[in-house]
Amino acid sequence: MNSLHIGIIGMGRIGRIHADNLLRMPRVRLAAVSDLYADEALSQWATERGVPVVTKRGEDLLEDPDIHAVFICSHTDTHVPLIIAAAKAGKHIFCEKPISLDPARTKEALDAVREAGVKLQVGFNRRFDHNFERVRELVLEGRIGEPHLVKITSRDPSPPPEDYIAKSGGIFIDMTIHDFDMARFLIGRDIEEVYAHGSVLVDPAFARYGDLDTAVVTLKFAGGALGVIDNSRRAVYGYDQRVEVFGSEGSVTVANDHPNTAEISTSDSVSHDKPLHFFLERYNEAYIREVRRFAESLLDGAGVPVDGFDGLQAELAALAAKWSVRLGRGVKLAELDDSDRLAAEARNKEATLA
Amino acid sequence: MNSLHIGIIGMGRIGRIHADNLLRMPRVRLAAVSDLYADEALSQWATERGVPVVTKRGEDLLEDPDIHAVFICSHTDTHVPLIIAAAKAGKHIFCEKPISLDPARTKEALDAVREAGVKLQVGFNRRFDHNFERVRELVLEGRIGEPHLVKITSRDPSPPPEDYIAKSGGIFIDMTIHDFDMARFLIGRDIEEVYAHGSVLVDPAFARYGDLDTAVVTLKFAGGALGVIDNSRRAVYGYDQRVEVFGSEGSVTVANDHPNTAEISTSDSVSHDKPLHFFLERYNEAYIREVRRFAESLLDGAGVPVDGFDGLQAELAALAAKWSVRLGRGVKLAELDDSDRLAAEARNKEATLA
Amino acid sequence: MNSLHIGIIGMGRIGRIHADNLLRMPRVRLAAVSDLYADEALSQWATERGVPVVTKRGEDLLEDPDIHAVFICSHTDTHVPLIIAAAKAGKHIFCEKPISLDPARTKEALDAVREAGVKLQVGFNRRFDHNFERVRELVLEGRIGEPHLVKITSRDPSPPPEDYIAKSGGIFIDMTIHDFDMARFLIGRDIEEVYAHGSVLVDPAFARYGDLDTAVVTLKFAGGALGVIDNSRRAVYGYDQRVEVFGSEGSVTVANDHPNTAEISTSDSVSHDKPLHFFLERYNEAYIREVRRFAESLLDGAGVPVDGFDGLQAELAALAAKWSVRLGRGVKLAELDDSDRLAAEARNKEATLA
Amino acid sequence: MNSLHIGIIGMGRIGRIHADNLLRMPRVRLAAVSDLYADEALSQWATERGVPVVTKRGEDLLEDPDIHAVFICSHTDTHVPLIIAAAKAGKHIFCEKPISLDPARTKEALDAVREAGVKLQVGFNRRFDHNFERVRELVLEGRIGEPHLVKITSRDPSPPPEDYIAKSGGIFIDMTIHDFDMARFLIGRDIEEVYAHGSVLVDPAFARYGDLDTAVVTLKFAGGALGVIDNSRRAVYGYDQRVEVFGSEGSVTVANDHPNTAEISTSDSVSHDKPLHFFLERYNEAYIREVRRFAESLLDGAGVPVDGFDGLQAELAALAAKWSVRLGRGVKLAELDDSDRLAAEARNKEATLA
Repeated sequence: MNSLHIGIIGMGRIGRIHADNLLRMPRVRLAAVSDLYADEALSQWATERGVPVVTKRGEDLLEDPDIHAVFICSHTDTHVPLIIAAAKAGKHIFCEKPISLDPARTKEALDAVREAGVKLQVGFNRRFDHNFERVRELVLEGRIGEPHLVKITSRDPSPPPEDYIAKSGGIFIDMTIHDFDMARFLIGRDIEEVYAHGSVLVDPAFARYGDLDTAVVTLKFAGGALGVIDNSRRAVYGYDQRVEVFGSEGSVTVANDHPNTAEISTSDSVSHDKPLHFFLERYNEAYIREVRRFAESLLDGAGVPVDGFDGLQAELAALAAKWSVRLGRGVKLAELDDSDRLAAEARNKEATLA
Repeated sequence: MNSLHIGIIGMGRIGRIHADNLLRMPRVRLAAVSDLYADEALSQWATERGVPVVTKRGEDLLEDPDIHAVFICSHTDTHVPLIIAAAKAGKHIFCEKPISLDPARTKEALDAVREAGVKLQVGFNRRFDHNFERVRELVLEGRIGEPHLVKITSRDPSPPPEDYIAKSGGIFIDMTIHDFDMARFLIGRDIEEVYAHGSVLVDPAFARYGDLDTAVVTLKFAGGALGVIDNSRRAVYGYDQRVEVFGSEGSVTVANDHPNTAEISTSDSVSHDKPLHFFLERYNEAYIREVRRFAESLLDGAGVPVDGFDGLQAELAALAAKWSVRLGRGVKLAELDDSDRLAAEARNKEATLA
Repeated sequence: MNSLHIGIIGMGRIGRIHADNLLRMPRVRLAAVSDLYADEALSQWATERGVPVVTKRGEDLLEDPDIHAVFICSHTDTHVPLIIAAAKAGKHIFCEKPISLDPARTKEALDAVREAGVKLQVGFNRRFDHNFERVRELVLEGRIGEPHLVKITSRDPSPPPEDYIAKSGGIFIDMTIHDFDMARFLIGRDIEEVYAHGSVLVDPAFARYGDLDTAVVTLKFAGGALGVIDNSRRAVYGYDQRVEVFGSEGSVTVANDHPNTAEISTSDSVSHDKPLHFFLERYNEAYIREVRRFAESLLDGAGVPVDGFDGLQAELAALAAKWSVRLGRGVKLAELDDSDRLAAEARNKEATLA
Repeated sequence: MNSLHIGIIGMGRIGRIHADNLLRMPRVRLAAVSDLYADEALSQWATERGVPVVTKRGEDLLEDPDIHAVFICSHTDTHVPLIIAAAKAGKHIFCEKPISLDPARTKEALDAVREAGVKLQVGFNRRFDHNFERVRELVLEGRIGEPHLVKITSRDPSPPPEDYIAKSGGIFIDMTIHDFDMARFLIGRDIEEVYAHGSVLVDPAFARYGDLDTAVVTLKFAGGALGVIDNSRRAVYGYDQRVEVFGSEGSVTVANDHPNTAEISTSDSVSHDKPLHFFLERYNEAYIREVRRFAESLLDGAGVPVDGFDGLQAELAALAAKWSVRLGRGVKLAELDDSDRLAAEARNKEATLA
């Protein structure tokens, strides 16, 4: 393939980020964009950038024989039907995470992708961050020996608005999902069991939707390695994105990125500016590299760096975390196949407590 | 009290550290030392330092009316009988951790102390470390607001010999106990529930004694704050002792101490010397301050900085962690009162798995 | 002005960097490029980017009424005639540093610019670095009080090839010139006196051209503040670009930028990856911001951030440094007006030594 | 020698520091102390520590056949006569820096020491600092290749009182002297030439005594390596003691020591506590090791780690710095032999300016 023609479905914040990054890439043409709420402003946006087609119907892009691949950046509940339709139309797919809130539905989408023989990349952008990529490299090079423990700190600078909370699916599928994927990526092993606990300490709005805003999640990996993730919806000092992988021959940690290296010493203290504020600043480069890798996989025939299986594993871990909080025990991913049994145990436990 | 006369029971490594530190303190006199294996070498040690009495019998110290306080540095299984005897003899007591491997026995010792009206300090030396003290100060000053999460990394440079493993009581009571106490100290709240999981990744010897060498322990505190501890018996880069307390208004972390601040840049990398090797180097000053605070509490009538209740709480958390591993669920400290029920649940679970 | 049409004269490495950055800017059109050695490859380069005109004659750009501004990126000895010609043609000018190797010639160029009423920006790209900009901000905000001392470390990863050394004009005008400008920028004062000493420690090629490869330069500023610059042509660990400004109320330092924050702890040491390799990596963003500021000054009528006076001051400091080495004493910039007297002193000193 | 008997002459702040350190050393006995202003308080101090002799006359110590070595901690102008007298009395000598304010007088003292065959150690305590020792080790191991440049930052937290300024001998002999010695120590080469410039920016009191409070001093070493020292009498953030040695194969820097590693992140910034306040905190351990090395050189027959030649070299560099400021040029240490010529040049220069 000499030139890759791409359409984007869903032109919210993340859709526009991908659009701007695609527009700067050689051998890539942004052929069309669609958004349910496409308006004059979007048309103007497209005109300024030379994007020829703007439509309200994502189907228009799927029906366009000139488009090779679509980016699915619309609401989560549209992901599965769009993936299935795109696969049937023979389009390669880049889909934002999560594929769905229900692993059974996600599996349907993956089946459609497999049958159609198209490529699917899932939007775990953090894998392309310069810091985390370096950790993965060092682990692969054996610099820390056999991994024993992966630790991830992942905290947002401030909680989302209440209407977002209402439909986010909960902290584990909305926020921790990135960390589940990161844990698998860094350590190169699949998650077997999850234990989660959490509290509402930041904003009572979370409690109103049965959600949590502060959580600690522990992981067991195939082979015995351990993991721990801590999340908060509000770190007042900014986006906190750190990891550590500890192993038999050493340890590697990454600290946050800062806007500069200035250190100021006064009669009070020695201080630095706060970390980069949020994901747009911290993962700006990662978004570019994520999309470039997708384009290269199509143009040059390489594999996609994050596939549907990866997407599903993170969703399963998130679901296991949710059950773990309800059951008060570690939950194996293998147990999720029998959700009736888990539900019965939960009812039994809740009856005992009542 | 103008001058404090102290006797030390148990002159192993830690007994001698305390001895050397006491010998340099004003208003303190090291009046006697005892050790079951007292020999010519110990007598010479004492002569060189002007310690007048060396004996094989700890009772000799308890019977000596001129001694105000004893340090109990002998094997763990002697702690409870010695505390009870010392309390009956009206001696103030400094006891190494843990008081015992069995909370019921520990409570007996604490009852004796209470009845006798003597003071008891438990040897959680890390509370007196310059880094951790500073974290506690900052938390108390409200610099990070309301604590939401405490994280502790605690890794030894190398595992103990197998005969030590055989009688250590397991990783939670032997190693994590310091971290349970540190968590309570930093956050100023009691632990309500513990979930622990672990693996044997460092040395198969641990498996032979039903023990673990790598563990992640999560905590729930009264009021909803969360905690997480990670332990390893072997960090090849040296003693790893870091903490973080994250709260509503910020976060404070402490890094390891290094022997110097030299940073060397070559064509390969930018590097520093490794952290201080082990507890003797890292907690050298902390041991001095721990003992000074004990002496001051007697000389000046202040309270002891770590008391029997603190010792018991850490032991209970360790026991809950042990049950948690067996039961695969979070265990509340309150559940430990009904160990029959826990044992029945464990048998039931093990039968189901069999 | 709604749209700024730019031509670039000299399409070597730096010319192409500016070209690529200009091509991404809104409201800017790269209308033409010229290079004495323009060839097929350059034409192809231009075609791929949609640059309509490629020529061997810089004059073509100056004669083009559709071009508003030119970038002068050709060899140093062409700068002055090109500035004069461009100014006469009414073009605004961005000129790489130094304007010339001879302050008298530089003044002629500045006179032409003034008479023509065009704008001239000199290519001191480092002023636009995120770290140094932050230092300047902190100084301006008064965070360190009154500046007393500015320190600059500026070391290249490896020396240039010998043919470059032969015509570079020497370390002070070729390399330190950036640091003279940085010192003035950070401290907001003009340099009054310079003392320089140096050695040939890196590569004997420098000695063959009467040049130095390692130097320490001290500065006196108007008002009494002091400065010191250290330079080396080879830092094996990479580009070393650090500054410190120390003042009555504190100090601010900036460290080097690194490609990631990974810290790896092994049984040997704790290490990081080396700093960003050289100016292309370190000042990538600074080059973009430098050119954007030039474009904005024309499009929006703001002043240029680094003007001809700044360019001249740095050249004068470089010249004073050169005389200082020859005379073995501090040289005031004011003394440069009487170069005959300096030359006589030098001859006298050299005769005494002979 | 099995036991070393020491007397201290001059029981001001530094005399008492050495006393307390000597009192804790095995094989060393503090036999006597003298102070011109010895009073009841000093007698009590001695009694509490078991020091048997307190006297107003330093001569008493020199006449005591039981004393092997004396520490000279009295005012600078007493150093030379005391060294000469002590040497004649066959006592080994530890003398605080500087030996004198006049190199000619210092040479007399060194001659007396040589003739008597006693040992003399000069009090350059900073050589024994853990950070600087590590730099020296790394340089000796060849980790940075051939040294090209040494940089020293040395700033006090606050200026001394005016009566101290009045008789200090000036910043170069009082403060920079430590840095001249450190430069020689780190790079292992002698200083050949010094250029100094400075200002009065901190406190006008310095100007009243013809002194400076802010200075930059550059050095040329035998073999071509360069050096630079910056000094300030007031760094509001505390004692600033950093060095860098840059060489053909790399660079080593040391940062300041801090009281703890706590890093606090808030909505404002990321901050640390300030560096250790002043020399008592920073060099506490260095003072102990300095004195231990002196004692070991006598007890075990090793050489002293800092001898009279080292003391003289630092004084000569200080004197060259003073002349450099007056003459406005670099001054070679070899020129100091002909002070008449320097004085004539100075008068000539001052006449020209007048």
